[in-house]
Amino acid sequence: MPIPVGIVGFRGYSGAELIRILDRHPHTEPVLLEHRTDSAEDPSPRGAKQPRILPSSAESVKASGLAVVFLATPPEVSMELTPALLDAGAKVIDLSGAFRLRTPEMYKKWYKSGHTAPALLAEAAYGLPEFFREQIKPARLVSNPGCYPTAANLAIRPLLEAGIVDRRAGIVCDAKSGVSGAGRKPGLKSSFCEVTENFSAYSLLDHRHVPEVLQNSGLEESEFSFTAQLLPINRGILETIYFRAANSTSAAEILAIYEKFYNGTPFVRFYDPGVMPDLRAVQRTNFCDIGIKFDAATGRGVIVAAIDNLVKGAAGQAVQNMNLILGFPEHEGLL
Amino acid sequence: MPIPVGIVGFRGYSGAELIRILDRHPHTEPVLLEHRTDSAEDPSPRGAKQPRILPSSAESVKASGLAVVFLATPPEVSMELTPALLDAGAKVIDLSGAFRLRTPEMYKKWYKSGHTAPALLAEAAYGLPEFFREQIKPARLVSNPGCYPTAANLAIRPLLEAGIVDRRAGIVCDAKSGVSGAGRKPGLKSSFCEVTENFSAYSLLDHRHVPEVLQNSGLEESEFSFTAQLLPINRGILETIYFRAANSTSAAEILAIYEKFYNGTPFVRFYDPGVMPDLRAVQRTNFCDIGIKFDAATGRGVIVAAIDNLVKGAAGQAVQNMNLILGFPEHEGLL
Amino acid sequence: MPIPVGIVGFRGYSGAELIRILDRHPHTEPVLLEHRTDSAEDPSPRGAKQPRILPSSAESVKASGLAVVFLATPPEVSMELTPALLDAGAKVIDLSGAFRLRTPEMYKKWYKSGHTAPALLAEAAYGLPEFFREQIKPARLVSNPGCYPTAANLAIRPLLEAGIVDRRAGIVCDAKSGVSGAGRKPGLKSSFCEVTENFSAYSLLDHRHVPEVLQNSGLEESEFSFTAQLLPINRGILETIYFRAANSTSAAEILAIYEKFYNGTPFVRFYDPGVMPDLRAVQRTNFCDIGIKFDAATGRGVIVAAIDNLVKGAAGQAVQNMNLILGFPEHEGLL
Amino acid sequence: MPIPVGIVGFRGYSGAELIRILDRHPHTEPVLLEHRTDSAEDPSPRGAKQPRILPSSAESVKASGLAVVFLATPPEVSMELTPALLDAGAKVIDLSGAFRLRTPEMYKKWYKSGHTAPALLAEAAYGLPEFFREQIKPARLVSNPGCYPTAANLAIRPLLEAGIVDRRAGIVCDAKSGVSGAGRKPGLKSSFCEVTENFSAYSLLDHRHVPEVLQNSGLEESEFSFTAQLLPINRGILETIYFRAANSTSAAEILAIYEKFYNGTPFVRFYDPGVMPDLRAVQRTNFCDIGIKFDAATGRGVIVAAIDNLVKGAAGQAVQNMNLILGFPEHEGLL
Repeated sequence: MPIPVGIVGFRGYSGAELIRILDRHPHTEPVLLEHRTDSAEDPSPRGAKQPRILPSSAESVKASGLAVVFLATPPEVSMELTPALLDAGAKVIDLSGAFRLRTPEMYKKWYKSGHTAPALLAEAAYGLPEFFREQIKPARLVSNPGCYPTAANLAIRPLLEAGIVDRRAGIVCDAKSGVSGAGRKPGLKSSFCEVTENFSAYSLLDHRHVPEVLQNSGLEESEFSFTAQLLPINRGILETIYFRAANSTSAAEILAIYEKFYNGTPFVRFYDPGVMPDLRAVQRTNFCDIGIKFDAATGRGVIVAAIDNLVKGAAGQAVQNMNLILGFPEHEGLL
Repeated sequence: MPIPVGIVGFRGYSGAELIRILDRHPHTEPVLLEHRTDSAEDPSPRGAKQPRILPSSAESVKASGLAVVFLATPPEVSMELTPALLDAGAKVIDLSGAFRLRTPEMYKKWYKSGHTAPALLAEAAYGLPEFFREQIKPARLVSNPGCYPTAANLAIRPLLEAGIVDRRAGIVCDAKSGVSGAGRKPGLKSSFCEVTENFSAYSLLDHRHVPEVLQNSGLEESEFSFTAQLLPINRGILETIYFRAANSTSAAEILAIYEKFYNGTPFVRFYDPGVMPDLRAVQRTNFCDIGIKFDAATGRGVIVAAIDNLVKGAAGQAVQNMNLILGFPEHEGLL
Repeated sequence: MPIPVGIVGFRGYSGAELIRILDRHPHTEPVLLEHRTDSAEDPSPRGAKQPRILPSSAESVKASGLAVVFLATPPEVSMELTPALLDAGAKVIDLSGAFRLRTPEMYKKWYKSGHTAPALLAEAAYGLPEFFREQIKPARLVSNPGCYPTAANLAIRPLLEAGIVDRRAGIVCDAKSGVSGAGRKPGLKSSFCEVTENFSAYSLLDHRHVPEVLQNSGLEESEFSFTAQLLPINRGILETIYFRAANSTSAAEILAIYEKFYNGTPFVRFYDPGVMPDLRAVQRTNFCDIGIKFDAATGRGVIVAAIDNLVKGAAGQAVQNMNLILGFPEHEGLL
Repeated sequence: MPIPVGIVGFRGYSGAELIRILDRHPHTEPVLLEHRTDSAEDPSPRGAKQPRILPSSAESVKASGLAVVFLATPPEVSMELTPALLDAGAKVIDLSGAFRLRTPEMYKKWYKSGHTAPALLAEAAYGLPEFFREQIKPARLVSNPGCYPTAANLAIRPLLEAGIVDRRAGIVCDAKSGVSGAGRKPGLKSSFCEVTENFSAYSLLDHRHVPEVLQNSGLEESEFSFTAQLLPINRGILETIYFRAANSTSAAEILAIYEKFYNGTPFVRFYDPGVMPDLRAVQRTNFCDIGIKFDAATGRGVIVAAIDNLVKGAAGQAVQNMNLILGFPEHEGLL
């Protein structure tokens, strides 16, 4: 008997990916929660099986006994819906940036608008299972990480914890994302003719995902240079991360640090030193693939980290969090 | 009366671009020099005007009085053809990497094979007009720069000369190129299905273009981290360059340094601080566009430099060099 | 002394192409006419030369002595602006569908809304110079053809006039267009993620460009099956046109019919029978390239016609019409 | 206990798709059969589970008890390997064109070379399950259909059988395919820079897939005009099929004919009249989606049929055939 779980924002790209994953998940039934901001329906073949559609109201969620509700919505909508959904007894996994930062002040600084549900910030678990598995399991509210910080945090934290990085030289994270990261709402910057055969840097040093890296790594803002750039592809994030070693080390040692750190976890994979993942390796999967290049003679290191922004960077990670909350194996429905 | 100039390798991408530019140039007539390594002809409309085709032999070049010959060929072919062409009295502008490095040892280190015309290395002028205008004008042999180093050198050298950069922290150059940079010879890595909707880092820290940056900037290899990556587009290079300031400065000051350095030159353009060029701005042009982001509070700087790899990164710059050699205005036929 | 000509809708794709062409035209100076429906400005390099910008009002057009005004606007805006511009003494070349059909009834049938300037329909010359050169020269108002009908009419009419086609079997025109054909206004259907790696038929048998083919060829609607489809590219239209021969003929004879029909015109090119143009052959040019395949044994014929929808399908053809109106050579600024 | 099934040509695109599908199939284990024509290995993450690799010899196939061997190889290799594999007791599902036509003469006519295993032509079952389910089940050798004919046959045959089509007017099939249809072997025509932002017709009236449509539909060559065209995408085929009705009918009647014809089959889907499938609807699925447009006033009909060329057009259909041979439900592992 599958467990019904709700999706608000199911017509967006992350929402569609949630339907796809939850449909194949052996223990869940996706239920679509219509919201006033939804766009029109897509055509579909005659007779295609469609998930149930219900209103996104707290009453409807309560009446249908949804154990978990995913919010694939803009932060303002997430801030509006979350309190009532929690009151209705549902656990909430929010894919927006609404509950990722720890204080309303930080939210205001990076999102340029006030937080309308600040009381929930302290309670929200940051949904990066590789770091916060135990906090996620009992949480009522899980804040699914941003796509960029997911790859960056997974790549950077083991190096920092191992003391490998010369922090005075800083870490550079040059990030490239497919267009689906901008969501499905049409806009000039995501129009085909503007993007095809083009490449552009759209956020340098001040992207709103930066503080998610800082608060999970302990890096100071002055130590972390981040650029977000738009690839002419649908989906995938690749981050090229540069550092200088604090002490003598080697590619083999760095690989060993990573493999020890992620030992036993299902979704972080590594390549032999000098071999790099491309986006093809991770698209439509929940993996984060990591490649290592290190020049021992000069102490220069480069890490390439690749994820699918809609899976490990959004819907897949959200289901990974749901698995922890509902007591399923962490990888259920995701391999 | 147009001056006939020769092109070897005219069926490749840089060669085709040379034809296009030289055809519109008011003072030249492109003459195609057939070489045994050329691939088959493309279809063309009935009655289309075609440039003359001659053999690429020294005799043919001499007989037809070609003042300049462009070599849009692999380095081995360039090393083979150049001595005879020079003997035949032609000036040679070589678009390959054959004559870019200063010694056979450096060539061997980065190109992994021996140099077969080492006597010409000392004589070759490095064809970056913005830096070496006076050396290029009288040269018999001009070595056209690599596409990546063209953007990198133009972006980095003014900062280094002005003493802006904290060299101990190093400079990171994260470079992305369209597929035409790999040439027209078919290969799995440039096959459509491998490239579309993909992105990959293919050369980390050890790209053969690295020494061209070092020898023109004075940077040590340990101070320069360079990654080459493949964009799913036809043409264009965008480099995101990270540095830390040695002293207190500002975006406005950095802009002023650049504008002073390139004052009076026609092909380097700047944007207001915080505004970044994309590839659309430079495709099919000979411009190098530069954007500046600087965070004065932390001393972190990011420079975005964009060129068309086939124009300013190859054929356009080659014609710019030809203009200098033949005494035309540097921008003739290129605006 | 260049002649000033105005452009309304200069921030759209056809408008930008008009600026590009008129900038290089030896006898004109583009003047941008701001209109309330324009979108925001794009970033540009510091110091870039910009055309003059004036209001799009009749007074402004009159005061600045614009000989010709191009309207790269939606049909409703063209119907609104044209009468006043004509009154102000300017000649108008309208790139919208406002004045292409001969009666308000036909406009209503295909455009699903009423015509607000019906008095001008009889006066408007249909701006396909290859057919209507003499009507265009003296016209006050030229209605630039639709992109699809430009290629279709150029390909079909010579065959019909020569009596080659079995009209009872009908003509099929399977048309594919790049996304810029939909204009620059953002919408879900032209969003990158919806278009990339996709292909779709969006208008079958009832496209509003169909009547432009009918009224210029004499075909009945029942004899002409037309489908419009969206290619995941920026620009270019390729139409694959199928017919059955009414009598015994050959590819060579068909080619001869075409070459005689277009003898002396600059923009229609042909390939040897069996050789087909692709979009690369015509992009950024004002050419219409035509390939012919004919199976004499069975009487089946296929014509492939390719244009750049923004040039021969819009801005280039508009300038071709301007050349006729202003007495310049038809190809001026277009080769 | 999964049944081992072999794949020759596993490094090509169809081969990779076979691995992907058979890996998830509940009853099979893919075994890779190395062949001398295979290209080099791709990088993969450390510790990734890899299928067994064996030689592709008959001995190896016999020793490992492979029930079925898939040949994702060029026709020459399939003709070479099939007799020995059959002798070794394996059933063979060949994805090449080697065994699709009924006589060596037809093979010679369309493939321009002699057939080296003509004795098997009569025995081979044509692996289009929707038409030949009962012949496939007991077959030793199944010839998997071409990608283009799969969509064309599924779309056309029900109309012909119902007598809907005016055969004197002929059927036009305008077909567009992604680049993976050309296989993984690099070539200029499938190079990224040649394909991106381009579109081309590469085979008009004489594509080698044409006879597969004729022999399954009963159409004469003179009644069927087929063009193959190259889309700048990785995967997917969309065919736009034009016909004229022999008698008065309607879209609803045509839909009813289709739905009756395919009643009970799992992989052919329909849309409401006037609604068309795009490639997104079928990519990475084994579905053939069909849309219908019919203008009753004039008797003109258009059918749009879409498949994924690597799934329903190759590997998916091959597994569908395997399911029939091994007695599994036809859709096993394919939904």
